[in-house]
Amino acid sequence: MGNFEIVWQDSGCEARRGMLKTAHGYVETPVFCPIGTTGAVKGIAPKQLKETGAVLVLANTYHLMLRPGIETVERLGGLHKFMSWNGPLLTDSGGYQVFSLSSLTRVDDDGVEFTSHVDGAKIYLNAEVAIRMQNRLGSDIIMCFDQCPPFPCDDRRLRQAVDRTVLWAQRAKQAHANPDQLLFGVVQGGIDLALRTRCASELVKLDFDGYAIGGLSVGEGHNNMIKTVSRTAALLPKHKVRYLMGVGTPADIIAAVAAGVDMFDCVLPTRNGRNASAFTENGPLRVRNNANINDPEPIQAACDCYCCKNFSRGTLRHFFNVGEMLGPILVSLHNLRFYQRLMARIRDAIERNEFADWAVEQLKNDY
Amino acid sequence: MGNFEIVWQDSGCEARRGMLKTAHGYVETPVFCPIGTTGAVKGIAPKQLKETGAVLVLANTYHLMLRPGIETVERLGGLHKFMSWNGPLLTDSGGYQVFSLSSLTRVDDDGVEFTSHVDGAKIYLNAEVAIRMQNRLGSDIIMCFDQCPPFPCDDRRLRQAVDRTVLWAQRAKQAHANPDQLLFGVVQGGIDLALRTRCASELVKLDFDGYAIGGLSVGEGHNNMIKTVSRTAALLPKHKVRYLMGVGTPADIIAAVAAGVDMFDCVLPTRNGRNASAFTENGPLRVRNNANINDPEPIQAACDCYCCKNFSRGTLRHFFNVGEMLGPILVSLHNLRFYQRLMARIRDAIERNEFADWAVEQLKNDY
Repeated sequence: MGNFEIVWQDSGCEARRGMLKTAHGYVETPVFCPIGTTGAVKGIAPKQLKETGAVLVLANTYHLMLRPGIETVERLGGLHKFMSWNGPLLTDSGGYQVFSLSSLTRVDDDGVEFTSHVDGAKIYLNAEVAIRMQNRLGSDIIMCFDQCPPFPCDDRRLRQAVDRTVLWAQRAKQAHANPDQLLFGVVQGGIDLALRTRCASELVKLDFDGYAIGGLSVGEGHNNMIKTVSRTAALLPKHKVRYLMGVGTPADIIAAVAAGVDMFDCVLPTRNGRNASAFTENGPLRVRNNANINDPEPIQAACDCYCCKNFSRGTLRHFFNVGEMLGPILVSLHNLRFYQRLMARIRDAIERNEFADWAVEQLKNDY
Repeated sequence: MGNFEIVWQDSGCEARRGMLKTAHGYVETPVFCPIGTTGAVKGIAPKQLKETGAVLVLANTYHLMLRPGIETVERLGGLHKFMSWNGPLLTDSGGYQVFSLSSLTRVDDDGVEFTSHVDGAKIYLNAEVAIRMQNRLGSDIIMCFDQCPPFPCDDRRLRQAVDRTVLWAQRAKQAHANPDQLLFGVVQGGIDLALRTRCASELVKLDFDGYAIGGLSVGEGHNNMIKTVSRTAALLPKHKVRYLMGVGTPADIIAAVAAGVDMFDCVLPTRNGRNASAFTENGPLRVRNNANINDPEPIQAACDCYCCKNFSRGTLRHFFNVGEMLGPILVSLHNLRFYQRLMARIRDAIERNEFADWAVEQLKNDY
């Protein structure tokens, strides 16, 4: 056995129930991973996060490099202790920031020079540095440094990004020095299936612990994304875990699970929570709306989260209205729990061997 | 028996252990009451607040009148449900805002017209309105509307404030319409002992459920305050609970307990927490200090709070440095727990009949 076991393969689609083994515990898949950018899921104490059902948490290498610096995290006992999260942790490589902070970067075939968005300091990242930093952080799952091209992107640049991603993956594999950490390769290639195929086949030769599908949810739209995910997932080894990075809405996740994806991360539950937008099966609830002023109902009557068990829409609206921190915190908690419950229902539908039908029903919701 | 029972009277000073009965449960005194201005202790979920050991929470009538409005709180099920706090609640009367927002008020012998600091709306408060609003909020302990003079204050205005406070207390007593709520009178009079004496004796005639000492901690200094508290407490009936409003530092509280005070409220633990200042027995720890960057120790090694059990000074400093909400939240939690532990130690020292000596030892600390 490797680090990933398929517990059940749905017979009606590619969806599968799995179990991923990490140095800090097991992760049931399909799994949703909340984002703790600089060492915290914004406003949420680890104890509260655990109560939402979260098992795996992501932190951003690039942000941690800038502040407080990798050395400080090390001196404070490593990333788990630093964040007070004793369960599985995943770090990204910084590659995504090449894309999201592109005005502050200079890329060549070796790597990327960033200008810190905090103080203008120059920071250099390449395949080896990204691995070394993640080795030092001590996260359980680490990612190869990749180049995420924008959308749309001309053919030459897209090909160049794939070439670099493959080259950097080879170097990352070489550089990786901590056998307790799972190393994942990242498949790039935009929505170009030939490039995705080439990238996937090169990465598979390197035999990573898991495979991520990167470079999506950058403007290509749901249908392009799902088509690309579906074709790319089919190119990856069945018995390795598959991770769709930075995705997404409940509808995105359901469709990607049907295509055989096992792992997801996304800022939506917390970002939307901070912006007073609550996920419900009937579409988003805008907490600030005047309609909620005197509404004694929770966000969702059937929800078992701390927010819904304790606070009315009226109180939540008031908290946002007066700028009380509890507003963003409570709606974030609701949204995080909403996502974890969605994943539990996904796992359940797969185990019942009914995922394809269940997914069709779910996608009728206004997610 | 009334609503307050003295469990133990220290023989070396005026300090006493008591038990206050409210409609939402018992309160062991001396007690410290955190402040949930507009329905929340800033950033702290009620569950977390309970874990700090808090039993009694204060909310501000004036702030709730402005937003969301008393009618909205009623429609959302009353203040307990609104805040999701099923334990004892105390509301102030709005009287303190006559002082703290004095540039926005117009006071006469009947009451006060406020100009809302939010939207400029005119709001009228007098003895009857303040009681009616608190009756509608449904808090367990409500306060008479009083006039808190500034410090220093000329004799004529100080006398006028006492006259009004007495007059308004008589009207409040008449207006109070909910026997489930304890009504406290507020003794004013600055640091003028003759005026304090007159005010206290007039209020005692009205036989309130408890007596507050108001108008202190407004610039008169620790020694003036404690002298005034000590003299005023001696004028109040022994078997009624005594509440020193808006106080204070650990040293203030210890000295006031020695003078026979039973209840305290103050913004210090949360305000200082938000400003990265942590209470310790060795004086304040400034969390932002560079000295903490790589410090793996918690704020206090011996502290049993969630923050100290889980986070290093280094991580806390980082959270403040990157603007992560968890910084203010965690240090607020520590400070709230610090205050509750201080009160538990105070109650313990009284029960051991050693409070006077214990207090002298404690006051050597750099609180």
